[in-house]
Amino acid sequence: MTEFDSGALLRRLFDAALAAADPAKAVPRFLPPPPPKGSGGRTIVVGAGKAAGAMARAVEDNWDGDLQGLVVTRYGHAVPCRRIEVVEAAHPVPDQAGLDAAGRILRMVQGLGPDDLVLCLISGGGSALLSLPAEGISLEEKQAVNKALLRSGAAIDEMNCLRKHLSAIKGGRLAAAAAPARVVSLLISDVPGDDPAVIASGPTVPDPTSFADALAILDKYDIDAPSSVRKHLQAAAEETPKPGDPRLASCETHLIARPQDSLEAAAAVARAAGVTPVILGDSIEGEAREVAQVMAGIARQAARFGQPAKPPCVLLSGGETTVTLRGNGRGGRNAEFLLALTVALESTPGEGMDSIHAIACDTDGIDGSEDNAGALMGPRTLARAADAGLDAKAMLADNDGYGFFSALGDLVVTGPTLTNVNDFRAILIASDPTCA
Amino acid sequence: MTEFDSGALLRRLFDAALAAADPAKAVPRFLPPPPPKGSGGRTIVVGAGKAAGAMARAVEDNWDGDLQGLVVTRYGHAVPCRRIEVVEAAHPVPDQAGLDAAGRILRMVQGLGPDDLVLCLISGGGSALLSLPAEGISLEEKQAVNKALLRSGAAIDEMNCLRKHLSAIKGGRLAAAAAPARVVSLLISDVPGDDPAVIASGPTVPDPTSFADALAILDKYDIDAPSSVRKHLQAAAEETPKPGDPRLASCETHLIARPQDSLEAAAAVARAAGVTPVILGDSIEGEAREVAQVMAGIARQAARFGQPAKPPCVLLSGGETTVTLRGNGRGGRNAEFLLALTVALESTPGEGMDSIHAIACDTDGIDGSEDNAGALMGPRTLARAADAGLDAKAMLADNDGYGFFSALGDLVVTGPTLTNVNDFRAILIASDPTCA
Repeated sequence: MTEFDSGALLRRLFDAALAAADPAKAVPRFLPPPPPKGSGGRTIVVGAGKAAGAMARAVEDNWDGDLQGLVVTRYGHAVPCRRIEVVEAAHPVPDQAGLDAAGRILRMVQGLGPDDLVLCLISGGGSALLSLPAEGISLEEKQAVNKALLRSGAAIDEMNCLRKHLSAIKGGRLAAAAAPARVVSLLISDVPGDDPAVIASGPTVPDPTSFADALAILDKYDIDAPSSVRKHLQAAAEETPKPGDPRLASCETHLIARPQDSLEAAAAVARAAGVTPVILGDSIEGEAREVAQVMAGIARQAARFGQPAKPPCVLLSGGETTVTLRGNGRGGRNAEFLLALTVALESTPGEGMDSIHAIACDTDGIDGSEDNAGALMGPRTLARAADAGLDAKAMLADNDGYGFFSALGDLVVTGPTLTNVNDFRAILIASDPTCA
Repeated sequence: MTEFDSGALLRRLFDAALAAADPAKAVPRFLPPPPPKGSGGRTIVVGAGKAAGAMARAVEDNWDGDLQGLVVTRYGHAVPCRRIEVVEAAHPVPDQAGLDAAGRILRMVQGLGPDDLVLCLISGGGSALLSLPAEGISLEEKQAVNKALLRSGAAIDEMNCLRKHLSAIKGGRLAAAAAPARVVSLLISDVPGDDPAVIASGPTVPDPTSFADALAILDKYDIDAPSSVRKHLQAAAEETPKPGDPRLASCETHLIARPQDSLEAAAAVARAAGVTPVILGDSIEGEAREVAQVMAGIARQAARFGQPAKPPCVLLSGGETTVTLRGNGRGGRNAEFLLALTVALESTPGEGMDSIHAIACDTDGIDGSEDNAGALMGPRTLARAADAGLDAKAMLADNDGYGFFSALGDLVVTGPTLTNVNDFRAILIASDPTCA
């Protein structure tokens, strides 16, 4: 393989990862049969998330029968639909447009009968987009609790317990409202563990936690919650539906796309190209530059000792890294990861290190708030940067991964992909001489 | 396996890693034949590093013939020898005892003949212990340059270029001084890539860099070097021996123990126990708590998807993590890594996560400046900590890994092992039900 070929292969791996999570392909496989003709059963499509528009369109394109509905997606992520209304709202901080849509969705599924079908289309970002505070709590009060929890160091399941007990729609409440209709939820996962109760805070999934749990968490972390919030939790007026709740007896949940599925799809493309795939994790987390350093160490091990696999091989991983901003540069976590990887590989002695190429992209097509999905690097990246007068270390210190790869013309630009299975990273070690 | 068995297996893996790096076993295999009887050739043993005392003892115990010599090791690392003098000195900041020893070592190898043999025993820490500034430069001036370089972000090979050109003994100068004697160097590596020119700054290894390179590096990083240092570099009076230098024609170098060898030894023990070893890297670097988070992600992948290997499997890695101190607790990087891993695994949803045990230890037997080599964790660690009133997250925030594992009685204590192939980490995923 030439350097060009290595880059092209990495891009093909990313494309395979995207294709595996594409609603147009993933949704039809999991569509239930429509209500029997003549039963009078209606089909209502609701949903929320970055992929909600594309999922709605996939339903429309593959549905045999009448349907109507409303989904809410992020600004810029709408897809033209004929029968399902697609509303855009704010993410990650909810706005009035999202609240209004959530209220309409809740009312839309109320008063249905046992012959009716609710298709619920959920994807990453759905938690913010499907925001509807419980009666008596304002959006601001709910957000204040959320922020305090984030600062407190509470675990994700503790935050979800609170969210579900301050919401009128989360924690299975949407499904309870739809009873006795049949509810089929199609989920695209962007969370570690792929737990349906966690994705968008599980609007159609039973919730084992209670108001008492929520209050205990406020106390545990000494959260100074608004009195309306504390009053609501103490009143414990309407508990979330628990596992076994008869209102959720007609609910089905299907994970139609997961980070792991995208990694497996990329692995299959690698294997077909004669490159051994090593899937390290579908949910790798940590500070982007530190994750890069660990990955550089594993890449070095492959190049030098043929472990965990002999080259040509490719290290695949998903999940969401974080960036602690220290500088004033531009770029998301994938550009930061890739720039840090470039620097770490350079300072890493060892044989075969001149055969390493990598790609890192957000599968939603937007790395941070820039116009790129991510970027590509190869063994000549640093030399080309030096020729262009770019100081890789200084730009990394300035969090300027976008500036670095943009100047080299090595950004990967896809535009919004209308799906989201988190980040995709592939590090190709091609040190077999016939392949380098 | 019970939890006890898992911990015992991990301890056996660590013991196997130590045994592979034990000078008593590693040195004899690489000893050259003594100078022929009747040739009049003498054998001079010199050396420096944390393992120098134990290496000297291994030579004495296995040497057929006369010998004499002097090695310098860290305070507390001396081993009783009969014929080789073992001097203790300061590490990592050199002191006068180390300088005096380095001077004596250099004089000891001067004036030898072609029938004489110099055995040079080098291990981690040797760079600080074998410190001898070039004439006209004080130890303080050399250290000032070192510190400025560390702050500047210079690469390790750039720092080594400077060190070698400010030293009277590094960068092959010790071997050049010993010419025309035969020089056999036995090295225990603790550096990424195991480059003999890097271990202890290569006192017996040719150096391709020049005084001009050293000056260029000072300029590149805008180092405000003392005038004595700049004058010495500009004078360029005595260049380091270059590759092909005839004075180094009778030099041999043997890596007798490397981090990878210890990982392979542990892997063999795992394999014999029916546990699949996955060696992720012999030189993994990064902030300890971030490395732990990445490792937790890989462990989750093994537990949930059987990748990169099916359980029961063990993730092995070496190399040196770093700890950015934020709190006031006690403990080295291995205790910090293990406490962060414990916290990360807990907050990591997924099947099979209740079958994970881990060990992290420094192979020199001293994690940081405490009395432990490292520690052990298992699936019940957090529950036991809670019972004991320990707050794992708070103690991690306080960098108190030692306090945490000490209170649980889960420290691994070996005392100084008298060798050093860097850190050893093993994460056992035993989720096979017959094994859990």
